[in-house]
Amino acid sequence: MMKKNLQKIVFIGAGNVATSLSDSLKDKREIIQVYSKTLAHAKTLGQKLKCTYTNDLKKIALHADLYIIAVKDDAIEKVCKSLKLNGKLVIHTSGSTNLDILKNISKKYGVLWPMYSFAGKAKLASGTPFFIEASNKKDEKVLTDLVNEMKGKPYYINSEERAKVHLAAVFINNFPNHLFVIAEALCKEAGIPFKLFLPLAKETFENITKQSPVLSQTGPASRNDKQILNKHLALLKLHPLYMDIYKILTKSIIQTSSGRKKL
Amino acid sequence: MMKKNLQKIVFIGAGNVATSLSDSLKDKREIIQVYSKTLAHAKTLGQKLKCTYTNDLKKIALHADLYIIAVKDDAIEKVCKSLKLNGKLVIHTSGSTNLDILKNISKKYGVLWPMYSFAGKAKLASGTPFFIEASNKKDEKVLTDLVNEMKGKPYYINSEERAKVHLAAVFINNFPNHLFVIAEALCKEAGIPFKLFLPLAKETFENITKQSPVLSQTGPASRNDKQILNKHLALLKLHPLYMDIYKILTKSIIQTSSGRKKL
Repeated sequence: MMKKNLQKIVFIGAGNVATSLSDSLKDKREIIQVYSKTLAHAKTLGQKLKCTYTNDLKKIALHADLYIIAVKDDAIEKVCKSLKLNGKLVIHTSGSTNLDILKNISKKYGVLWPMYSFAGKAKLASGTPFFIEASNKKDEKVLTDLVNEMKGKPYYINSEERAKVHLAAVFINNFPNHLFVIAEALCKEAGIPFKLFLPLAKETFENITKQSPVLSQTGPASRNDKQILNKHLALLKLHPLYMDIYKILTKSIIQTSSGRKKL
Repeated sequence: MMKKNLQKIVFIGAGNVATSLSDSLKDKREIIQVYSKTLAHAKTLGQKLKCTYTNDLKKIALHADLYIIAVKDDAIEKVCKSLKLNGKLVIHTSGSTNLDILKNISKKYGVLWPMYSFAGKAKLASGTPFFIEASNKKDEKVLTDLVNEMKGKPYYINSEERAKVHLAAVFINNFPNHLFVIAEALCKEAGIPFKLFLPLAKETFENITKQSPVLSQTGPASRNDKQILNKHLALLKLHPLYMDIYKILTKSIIQTSSGRKKL
């Protein structure tokens, strides 16, 4: 039997991303250690994976084949300063962090960014896009195999492109989700069950599987219906920040719609 | 055989809403006429439904049982001024227009607002929520039957509540769709295929079927990760309006997240 590449893995990080990725890999590879700066988190994931765990960067096992840094983006730099893994492949999983943040840790390094909203989920959906970047072609291939094993879909982009993809992803997931948060808050105030809106939310998503979102734009802003826009603003008078959000999104919809009509 | 209520229907309006509703009703009722201020639109829908059509409000047939006003919200008032339908049931289909706009047309009036994004679709999805309001209990029942025939789900709210539901719906559909428009524009600029984001968009919706959106909030704003937030703003420097949208949604996410942590 051929020996598998990257047989032994260390996870640096024990949050949502590390938990999901390790779950997808645990049956095919050997996860030998979990690190988290919070010992309780390292322990939870370590016990789940039946491996050792630590909250001390100096105690990270040096005999693994692959090191996956899956900590919060703003903690990557600090972690990097404490790691020396010459000759071992080390990767991070961040959308907006450059590849070269890893260049002083090892001569083999890469990025594997899953475009996925991990909050509250243990399992990675099959077909999840993974954006790969590596310091050399051989490791790019190794990371591709890893993505295929996790039933993900591999794409190849550099750090600059990945930052742009990440920015667009914020407009696809983080911001719409926050608008749902606002809608839920407004519903609570008005005594309306939020679940009434699930069919409409489903539509909102399904529309973009069928046509450009430009063609699916409806509502008072796209008609520039001032009477209703003012009625809505009056209903938001106790929420100045929601009102500002309403105003600026309305302004942007009106600009986009009038641009279209001119064509 | 018992004679059906509301056997004969006139549609005032020939846009997306009238087209979808008439399609759902055409096999069970008799649609006798379509009005649109644009003759070509009246003709298109009239021919589809095999009924007469007109662009003259004075020529609206007076022998129907039900008149469905499905014109743009800001055109309802004008239509109302030209209609006298004593004793006939007249309804509008608007989320943010009060019931009593109809009170001078007939003594029987109501509202039937489908919470649905109609753009570019001929068919109404089954299970679509319909919000009903009527000037009397008997017509409320008549409208409920109509909703059931269209395989919709009836709910009963007054005009004030309906305006609030409509406002929340803007945050569930119109605004998220506009964020998708922005994401698509950013993708085009960066040469990234927009369809890469469909799995993430699907997740964004599916998350709210499982838990409160408050628990699904992820991303740099929810972590208040200033380094990435600034990187994203720099990428938006050629789009001042998108930048303002990014800033205010980020501000609102940070406020919501810090509010949660204090709990």
